[in-house]
Amino acid sequence: MNKIITVLPGDGIGPEVIKAAQKVLDTVAEKFSHQFTYLNAKIGGVAIDEEGTPLPQETIDLCKKSDGVLLGAVGGPKWDTLPGHMRPERGLLGIRKALELYANLRPVTAHKSLLDASTLKKEVIEGVDLMIVRELTGGLYFGQPQERRQENDGESVVDTLYYKNYEIERIIRQAFELARLRRKKVTSVDKANVLESSRVWREIAIAVHADYPDVELEHMLVDNAAMQLIRDPKQFDVVVTENMFGDILSDEASMLTGSLGMLPSASINGNGPGLYEPIHGSAPDIAGKNLANPLATILSVAMLLRYSFLMQEEADAVETAVSKVLEAGYRTGDIAEKGQPVLSTEEMTEKVIEHI
Amino acid sequence: MNKIITVLPGDGIGPEVIKAAQKVLDTVAEKFSHQFTYLNAKIGGVAIDEEGTPLPQETIDLCKKSDGVLLGAVGGPKWDTLPGHMRPERGLLGIRKALELYANLRPVTAHKSLLDASTLKKEVIEGVDLMIVRELTGGLYFGQPQERRQENDGESVVDTLYYKNYEIERIIRQAFELARLRRKKVTSVDKANVLESSRVWREIAIAVHADYPDVELEHMLVDNAAMQLIRDPKQFDVVVTENMFGDILSDEASMLTGSLGMLPSASINGNGPGLYEPIHGSAPDIAGKNLANPLATILSVAMLLRYSFLMQEEADAVETAVSKVLEAGYRTGDIAEKGQPVLSTEEMTEKVIEHI
Ligand SMILES: CC(C)[C@H](C(=O)O)[C@@H](O)C(=O)O
Ligand SMILES: CC(C)[C@H](C(=O)O)[C@@H](O)C(=O)O
Repeated sequence: MNKIITVLPGDGIGPEVIKAAQKVLDTVAEKFSHQFTYLNAKIGGVAIDEEGTPLPQETIDLCKKSDGVLLGAVGGPKWDTLPGHMRPERGLLGIRKALELYANLRPVTAHKSLLDASTLKKEVIEGVDLMIVRELTGGLYFGQPQERRQENDGESVVDTLYYKNYEIERIIRQAFELARLRRKKVTSVDKANVLESSRVWREIAIAVHADYPDVELEHMLVDNAAMQLIRDPKQFDVVVTENMFGDILSDEASMLTGSLGMLPSASINGNGPGLYEPIHGSAPDIAGKNLANPLATILSVAMLLRYSFLMQEEADAVETAVSKVLEAGYRTGDIAEKGQPVLSTEEMTEKVIEHI
Repeated sequence: MNKIITVLPGDGIGPEVIKAAQKVLDTVAEKFSHQFTYLNAKIGGVAIDEEGTPLPQETIDLCKKSDGVLLGAVGGPKWDTLPGHMRPERGLLGIRKALELYANLRPVTAHKSLLDASTLKKEVIEGVDLMIVRELTGGLYFGQPQERRQENDGESVVDTLYYKNYEIERIIRQAFELARLRRKKVTSVDKANVLESSRVWREIAIAVHADYPDVELEHMLVDNAAMQLIRDPKQFDVVVTENMFGDILSDEASMLTGSLGMLPSASINGNGPGLYEPIHGSAPDIAGKNLANPLATILSVAMLLRYSFLMQEEADAVETAVSKVLEAGYRTGDIAEKGQPVLSTEEMTEKVIEHI
């Protein structure tokens, strides 16, 4: 197949891990007789520096023309003092909205050979395999009004948690679809004892469930979910929740395995191109040093293959290669234990390629 | 001193642990020559059953007349199907608002003798001693509008995160005051890269900090805080955050030690009576069986003595007694390891009293 991939290296270690990911994509193309064409575009700090905005219109246009988008990372201390609308992360929020990427998929898998990296006990995380499905284009992040007010009795400030019901329905449906391909359990997380939006969320979850009688549905309050993730993460298969709750819970969950450098993510929309990125951020302290762990980005490539190109076999090949490389004992600095030899970004990428 | 304490046993194990706490209070009164008078009142499910509302006006009146309020727990399956405004937890939200209990103090301490109860590794939690200071009467919990809407293009729903600036200021000030009595570090948690209320929060934190130059202030994004609590909880001293974030993070933090049955809480207001309660909830499955762990409620008594009655010595005596009892190996069922003898609620209470 022919596929067009827009590549957004971004800031910090972004360019290095994106280069690694492209090598892996090239190998997949060769092995499985596909043709991948890359379009390069700017986002985040590098876009601010060169174009004066974290999300140039040209970037949006290129993304829309492509079959999938691969992002490195955005941000860094250089841009931390700029005003809010000019910050690198505005580029991220903007591209999510522009491509209507309403579903953020955050899988957390405990790799057998990395169990010791966790601050949790081995027996608690061994076998963890969950996916947080976070609503990504609604809720508190985008609701209006969002403003400061001058009232008679003093100043105040407001943000708005707003959802159209169809936005809730489509993300919950997405979660059920994903659960069908996994262990068939959906945990819908809300705060229905306090929030009206959560009560609507829960009603819609129950209604959508009627279309998926083969999948188990459970409801959990967000505070309890934050506890249960630590108490017994193995109980979860697919967790679906609103944008702000999902931001918090997915980062909490990502720390369970202890190796952020391993975790991919996908932000998708039923129709258009999806966006794939490692969750680790731009790590400015090690940028440009060939030290970054490329595996999270390589696993994001696997998600791109699986969810946007429907290339299951190819995705499996990439994921299996990563597992084999880890089992063989290869490590980048962030996941190496004392005494283990440490590979560079490029060496690690080569190892993965050898195993595809 | 003479003090009036309103006692709200509530539901489930509430009455048992409150009875235990009162015995401890009686002992303190005797030892230190105080006089504590108890007023009994109803809240939660029991109030719904007997008065038709989770928070009778009489309960509010009695609480307002007293020097401190001690609450057991509210809720249970019996009332789970009632409409929202008639649920037991409405009683809790109502009393917080009625007494303007804007500061929720949630200490998390890793007791040396209970380290194994955690799902986290011993070396990660040994020495943890943090306090989450959660804003309790504003934000998403109480902001208006909170409603369902019928719009031209379909249904929608809205909740509102609203703060008056003075509400933000007083909770942050509270956190600095508490930090001064501890290790002099405040971590202010927000989502300033997305929310306007968080940007105001951060500005106010910086402004208030000017009055506390002896205390260190750090800002942390809420998603990062959710990670850091698992990665390295020892880095925290006082954490201050808004209502919804605080609900999630304080429950996450409470799971670090692995023993919910040990954790007290205080909800206070600069002037009026504070409300003290264990965080463990009503545990309907073991209610009435003399099995509940009374220590969280007894430690809540210590907070009552400390924060509402300013009886430092008395509070220390209670906390020290609890530590000694644990060190001596006494356990209720929830914190016993295999093979350890298990005490009943009443036996555990006796042990604490013996050590005061
Ligand atoms: C950078 C920030 C705006 C973003 C978010 O909160 O969505 C990030 O935390 C994430 O989860 O991708
Ligand atoms: C019962 C519920 C409304 C309450 C809250 O969310 O505040 C509880 O979770 C708590 O933290 O005390």
